[in-house]
Amino acid sequence: MSDRFDAIVAELAKQKIELPSWAFGNSGTRFKVFGTPGTPRSVEEKIADAATVHRYTGLAPAVALHIPWDTVDDYSALRDYAAEQGVALGTVNSNTFQDDTYKFGSLTHSDPDVRQQAIDHHFRCIDVMNATGSRDLKIWLADGTNYPGQGDIRSRQDWLHESLQTIYDRLGDDQRMVLEYKFFEPAFYHTDVPDWGTSYAQVSALGDKAMVCLDTGHHAPGTNIEFIVAQLLRLGKLGSFDFNSRFYADDDLIVGAADPFQLFRILVEVVRGGGYANPDVAFMLDQCHNVEDKIPGQIRSVLNVQEMTTRALLLDREALTRAQHEHDVLGANEIFMDAFYTDVRGDLAEWRESRGLPANPMAAYAASGHQQRIENERVGGTQAGWGA
Amino acid sequence: MSDRFDAIVAELAKQKIELPSWAFGNSGTRFKVFGTPGTPRSVEEKIADAATVHRYTGLAPAVALHIPWDTVDDYSALRDYAAEQGVALGTVNSNTFQDDTYKFGSLTHSDPDVRQQAIDHHFRCIDVMNATGSRDLKIWLADGTNYPGQGDIRSRQDWLHESLQTIYDRLGDDQRMVLEYKFFEPAFYHTDVPDWGTSYAQVSALGDKAMVCLDTGHHAPGTNIEFIVAQLLRLGKLGSFDFNSRFYADDDLIVGAADPFQLFRILVEVVRGGGYANPDVAFMLDQCHNVEDKIPGQIRSVLNVQEMTTRALLLDREALTRAQHEHDVLGANEIFMDAFYTDVRGDLAEWRESRGLPANPMAAYAASGHQQRIENERVGGTQAGWGA
Amino acid sequence: MSDRFDAIVAELAKQKIELPSWAFGNSGTRFKVFGTPGTPRSVEEKIADAATVHRYTGLAPAVALHIPWDTVDDYSALRDYAAEQGVALGTVNSNTFQDDTYKFGSLTHSDPDVRQQAIDHHFRCIDVMNATGSRDLKIWLADGTNYPGQGDIRSRQDWLHESLQTIYDRLGDDQRMVLEYKFFEPAFYHTDVPDWGTSYAQVSALGDKAMVCLDTGHHAPGTNIEFIVAQLLRLGKLGSFDFNSRFYADDDLIVGAADPFQLFRILVEVVRGGGYANPDVAFMLDQCHNVEDKIPGQIRSVLNVQEMTTRALLLDREALTRAQHEHDVLGANEIFMDAFYTDVRGDLAEWRESRGLPANPMAAYAASGHQQRIENERVGGTQAGWGA
Amino acid sequence: MSDRFDAIVAELAKQKIELPSWAFGNSGTRFKVFGTPGTPRSVEEKIADAATVHRYTGLAPAVALHIPWDTVDDYSALRDYAAEQGVALGTVNSNTFQDDTYKFGSLTHSDPDVRQQAIDHHFRCIDVMNATGSRDLKIWLADGTNYPGQGDIRSRQDWLHESLQTIYDRLGDDQRMVLEYKFFEPAFYHTDVPDWGTSYAQVSALGDKAMVCLDTGHHAPGTNIEFIVAQLLRLGKLGSFDFNSRFYADDDLIVGAADPFQLFRILVEVVRGGGYANPDVAFMLDQCHNVEDKIPGQIRSVLNVQEMTTRALLLDREALTRAQHEHDVLGANEIFMDAFYTDVRGDLAEWRESRGLPANPMAAYAASGHQQRIENERVGGTQAGWGA
Repeated sequence: MSDRFDAIVAELAKQKIELPSWAFGNSGTRFKVFGTPGTPRSVEEKIADAATVHRYTGLAPAVALHIPWDTVDDYSALRDYAAEQGVALGTVNSNTFQDDTYKFGSLTHSDPDVRQQAIDHHFRCIDVMNATGSRDLKIWLADGTNYPGQGDIRSRQDWLHESLQTIYDRLGDDQRMVLEYKFFEPAFYHTDVPDWGTSYAQVSALGDKAMVCLDTGHHAPGTNIEFIVAQLLRLGKLGSFDFNSRFYADDDLIVGAADPFQLFRILVEVVRGGGYANPDVAFMLDQCHNVEDKIPGQIRSVLNVQEMTTRALLLDREALTRAQHEHDVLGANEIFMDAFYTDVRGDLAEWRESRGLPANPMAAYAASGHQQRIENERVGGTQAGWGA
Repeated sequence: MSDRFDAIVAELAKQKIELPSWAFGNSGTRFKVFGTPGTPRSVEEKIADAATVHRYTGLAPAVALHIPWDTVDDYSALRDYAAEQGVALGTVNSNTFQDDTYKFGSLTHSDPDVRQQAIDHHFRCIDVMNATGSRDLKIWLADGTNYPGQGDIRSRQDWLHESLQTIYDRLGDDQRMVLEYKFFEPAFYHTDVPDWGTSYAQVSALGDKAMVCLDTGHHAPGTNIEFIVAQLLRLGKLGSFDFNSRFYADDDLIVGAADPFQLFRILVEVVRGGGYANPDVAFMLDQCHNVEDKIPGQIRSVLNVQEMTTRALLLDREALTRAQHEHDVLGANEIFMDAFYTDVRGDLAEWRESRGLPANPMAAYAASGHQQRIENERVGGTQAGWGA
Repeated sequence: MSDRFDAIVAELAKQKIELPSWAFGNSGTRFKVFGTPGTPRSVEEKIADAATVHRYTGLAPAVALHIPWDTVDDYSALRDYAAEQGVALGTVNSNTFQDDTYKFGSLTHSDPDVRQQAIDHHFRCIDVMNATGSRDLKIWLADGTNYPGQGDIRSRQDWLHESLQTIYDRLGDDQRMVLEYKFFEPAFYHTDVPDWGTSYAQVSALGDKAMVCLDTGHHAPGTNIEFIVAQLLRLGKLGSFDFNSRFYADDDLIVGAADPFQLFRILVEVVRGGGYANPDVAFMLDQCHNVEDKIPGQIRSVLNVQEMTTRALLLDREALTRAQHEHDVLGANEIFMDAFYTDVRGDLAEWRESRGLPANPMAAYAASGHQQRIENERVGGTQAGWGA
Repeated sequence: MSDRFDAIVAELAKQKIELPSWAFGNSGTRFKVFGTPGTPRSVEEKIADAATVHRYTGLAPAVALHIPWDTVDDYSALRDYAAEQGVALGTVNSNTFQDDTYKFGSLTHSDPDVRQQAIDHHFRCIDVMNATGSRDLKIWLADGTNYPGQGDIRSRQDWLHESLQTIYDRLGDDQRMVLEYKFFEPAFYHTDVPDWGTSYAQVSALGDKAMVCLDTGHHAPGTNIEFIVAQLLRLGKLGSFDFNSRFYADDDLIVGAADPFQLFRILVEVVRGGGYANPDVAFMLDQCHNVEDKIPGQIRSVLNVQEMTTRALLLDREALTRAQHEHDVLGANEIFMDAFYTDVRGDLAEWRESRGLPANPMAAYAASGHQQRIENERVGGTQAGWGA
């Protein structure tokens, strides 16, 4: 291992990335959802798959739940099951976009009864959190409108505040709410929480336990995401990341797949702003594996985050600051790029082995026969997907 | 009726817009498809709905089919049924994106057997055309890849040519192929026919019976669509339009809903380039009605096209040309905007009545009780949607 | 005049739009600035041109200054001169992007001396405001970097806060600061105030006299600007508009030229949120007339705002709210579009005449011979432009 | 040197990148052009700077001229001067955007006299080519309009064809025309050659000596550029590259600076499609150095192309094709990314030394004192820029 690498090993060991249970189910587009052999039929099988990812990488000690997709009768039992598998239950994600009631909104609906129904759903999510010991309630809203005039943008923002406040007030002392924003989809004219500014304004009005969730795929074309990271860390309001990547819209591709240099820049600002290995800033994946295998897709994803974090940690910040102060544009950029272009894969492989992990988790998983085993075992039943 | 309006009435009377059968079925996003009462359960009910739109507007004398969604045993019988309803069967749309075989491509698949299967599907579509008397075979391909390296962009383009050539050679003398392009979705890294240039290059290599289909929602942000219209008309390769509108991606909103001025500019170039009331340039809708009612949604859509066509026809081209030659930027723009800002709704209402149509088709439909009737009648069965 | 129009006449009469002095100078792109006959050679001539626009439209009683472009020795004299012409001096715009010192930033520069120099410039602007009686200090910063690593995004944000606080503290009781944001240009990697969220966070940290300035051309592709308008009005932080329009980047075209429906939606939210005829929300133009004549370009611009405001005021909000609450998507949209599609030009012409203004200000200006007069008179000297 | 690297050394040695003379002059934005010490005051000094880049890198044996910026009395003498410096004169770039005549267009202008003037300028460029021995005439047009209605899109396209044909007919047997397209700027509504489709359609109508020039910064947001590369190579119409990079619009940043992975993907398709070391496909830079030093900016640029070409050459295409045919999405992507993530800098340094070049050209240039020398020597005169 190189000296530079040695110096950051302690930091690297702190990395934890939460996996989304739904990444192991089938997903697709409005045109088609392709099924794949071995896909989980139950929450337990999703958790088992998440645990498999952790076993091969040492990076993914928790799995996020999506309610009602991951509804069970006994959450303590689920927690115990997860613990046996070697993972914890993490963030609870609410879902107010698949019930017919929510066709025209949930927490922002003009009808107070519908808003209350959506609030009640969040209360149930908090109940789940109490049972699972989860800290974070993540709210992503599909709310919005498709046609100018369809809804009253302004009133919906006020209703949103009331709804969030009611939910916020139910949070326990050690619980948090993270509010995710998204540029568009499924609403095609206006979205009620479309940008970081809106999420920031809304959570600031609630209190310290409300934070912004930044999904790396939820921005307008050309948006400088690392700037938002730096700004939210500065404002003390970056609660969590949903990592994934995109070329076009909310493509939900494997994190780092579309623009690895962007992922690097984001992680540089995370480190710069004190967001790394900081319990207040949760690292999560939120991805779809429409055409690739899911377990190795998740392994690849956490490795991508780890490799890029390594590069970000390797950045020679002292030299960079010096070059920045001298306005040595090319020099500063070269120092920056040097970290990005450093091939960290060999050092990471060595380091993994030193910790009892496979040097190459992708190869180890492929060689393990695990995929074939679950494909053979998981026959019958209904494969998990976004609808179930 | 104003004199200006009088002068274009003869042109207006020539307008024909084909409706997509699938617009009457349920549609939505990957997050949720909301069902609605009164949705057709069969091809016949879809055709009946299209005929209803035509009855109220006089604008929509044909309905396009989607194979296999609209597969029936006896297409002659279907043709007769449509004729009884007052509409013709129009363009046949192929579908090679919902069979598991096509997960990694159809006409561009690396496996020649899969390509042949997709070609065979198009042969069946031509058989349908022969039975229905349809002229146009419309090909939109979902083919593409999600990750860099996943497929060989270059070979896929060659395979696409071979596949298209084979299909083209099966076309009858009076039949055409129109090749639709789309910027992205469902593929998220590369799409095999992503832009007009590709569609143009591919159809040019085939022959005179192959043309480009321009879907107004399938472009990169900021693209000047009317320029493409002008260019394709100039090159003699604009075969058809798929009208709809978008704020973000392929939103498939009601045509004219997102940017009415853009629709105006497009129609101005259509008229300018000889594409209006030109049998070689088919006008079609391709939309989704995710949250609004479908029949009135389609009525609204054809009215939007009609209203904007009226404005485009009202453009004082002589004065415009003069101002353009004088480089009177503000003057030329004002002449252009004058046509756009002219409120044509009153004149159109009067004209409709003069032709035995309701002055206000939207209001007439709402007052007719038709919607309630189909909601009451269409109970049971499986509502049509993109999957069936 | 129609009854609907009659009902809004009182509101219409309240409209005031501030003109930018620099719109009367030459402007262009990095490729070329074309000069035009009749262009002002002095601040006084720019003010005279602004007064001409007001004389023809009754809409533009104030003109904004840009320092140092509009630097004079005696601002009281300038104020008197403007008053004689019939206009007031309005917003003072600072300029910290044309001095060599600011190559790497101004209020965000890593060197405290440069920051102080930029702060001092703003102090001088406040001195100008004291002399002219202007209320608003508008700050648009060109600050940013071109290459990843070039600057420290996070520190620059802190320095920005310090600089703004120092300037803010110098404001008089009746003075305000408005902070403009811009997506990109002239910086091409990161911009220090790139979005409304950043401007909002920065001004919120200062106090009640600091507000956000929304330039309609400064957003990422696809951004829903009317949403931001609604949000900032709701948060009580919308201080002013810079109106213009764009197809691509910061095109600075005539307001309403690129997407008139967007301008309508923006004005609907302005009215909805109490931002119309509200002294806290200043309406300004910020445009370039690269190829069109400047005085008629400005006349066209204020007329565009007036026409679209008329349509926004005509919106039948009661009916709209009813349709919204009934989730009548198509009905609500039709009410919305009805206001947009109403041709208000005839009523406005009549109304103008009733107020002693030309029915058609564009035609009246063209017929007046004024343009030829200034082209003949303004010979010699140096034409005003962005550099002087 | 690694074995993998050894295997591609022969290919690497073939790389040639043409430098633009204007990159050594001052450049900026419409807001400000910052001057820098040491900037050339003459064509000869620009050529000397280009030769310096070549001396340090061995990559840049030719320099492109821009007419009239690089107009001289005696082109043979200039050719000899360049040869003495160690470089050849390359592509001749025409300029029809800085003369007042061209305010409303050049080759597409509605006035045949203006078109002839622009054609004559191109004839003069061909004269220059005859004197310099240049092969390629590169045409980039600023032509377009700012407002809908301002010009007649369709006629302009026809005029463009006529103009190009006239120029084309003047080309010598060994000369070529390359037609560059650009999404927007300086025109803000429509651009006459906005996309590859238009350039392709236009050059195809001319003949074999007309080709498309692809500038990597001239596309709509999200455009898959490597697809266009693959397509144009397939169609035999990719004549040259203008390399640079962008985050937003036509930022003209150092190639590879904004999205190194995109540059990699482009070069992979170049290699895949036979465009590498192919005399028919010219590699050129077209960049601005607004804030960074120009000579090291160009050194950095050619090194970026070299490093990324190395990675593209290292791609294990055999393994990739196998994985592609097996539809092993993750496996194929990993093979692809492996080449990208390989740190080639050490091998390249060693290889450079083996060829008598500095191992680290950036460091060598910085240590040489050359920059200080030209800063001291080049005092007085008028620094070169886009205007001169």
